[in-house]
Amino acid sequence: MKPINLKEKLQQFSAHWHPHRIAEVDDMQVLLAKIKGPFVWHAHPEEDELFQVLQGTLYMRFRNRVETVRQGELIVVPKGVEHCPETRNDEEVHLLLFERKTTRHTGEVNSALTQNHYPEI
Amino acid sequence: MKPINLKEKLQQFSAHWHPHRIAEVDDMQVLLAKIKGPFVWHAHPEEDELFQVLQGTLYMRFRNRVETVRQGELIVVPKGVEHCPETRNDEEVHLLLFERKTTRHTGEVNSALTQNHYPEI
Repeated sequence: MKPINLKEKLQQFSAHWHPHRIAEVDDMQVLLAKIKGPFVWHAHPEEDELFQVLQGTLYMRFRNRVETVRQGELIVVPKGVEHCPETRNDEEVHLLLFERKTTRHTGEVNSALTQNHYPEI
Repeated sequence: MKPINLKEKLQQFSAHWHPHRIAEVDDMQVLLAKIKGPFVWHAHPEEDELFQVLQGTLYMRFRNRVETVRQGELIVVPKGVEHCPETRNDEEVHLLLFERKTTRHTGEVNSALTQNHYPEI
């Protein structure tokens, strides 16, 4: 029940594509992530996933288009929809994610980028 | 699956203490609210509630203390904990809330400020 400062939390890690957990809300979790470059195509068959852009510009690729999500914007990827987040122009982008605690990082896909544990900070 | 711009959404309403729904994530909802002055004491027996401050300073009163939550910060009020959000110095504060769709605005309390419907914008 203490305030959580997003910028202070973001200073506590530097690895890209490695979400860190900052809070829980019922069976959901709030994650922070720093991302850069392309991720991997995946879907979460049972879970929606919210991405809020705190810094930079996120390009959310879907199979038939790309959505540009800027600082101060959010996007919800519905369950089952294949997506591939990426950043461009060598930009590091900071995200807040809101998703179920059961949501796997890259869904059914295993990749060198896949994280199975999100440290709490 | 379109980006949602928080500032644009906030321009679509002006009433204080009347959350508007901008997105859903599984059985949770994302709300925006403009608040000013004191609210009412209440609790949500079964649901946690997350408050992210987008503009201004939120004072989250608990029975034994007050937490100051500034722009760029968030706070989670656990289920069952009595709380009373307020703003000070006549400031309008903008909030993003994550909570269950079942969460009632003022819990078991009925007040002149209680909203039973959150418009979608």
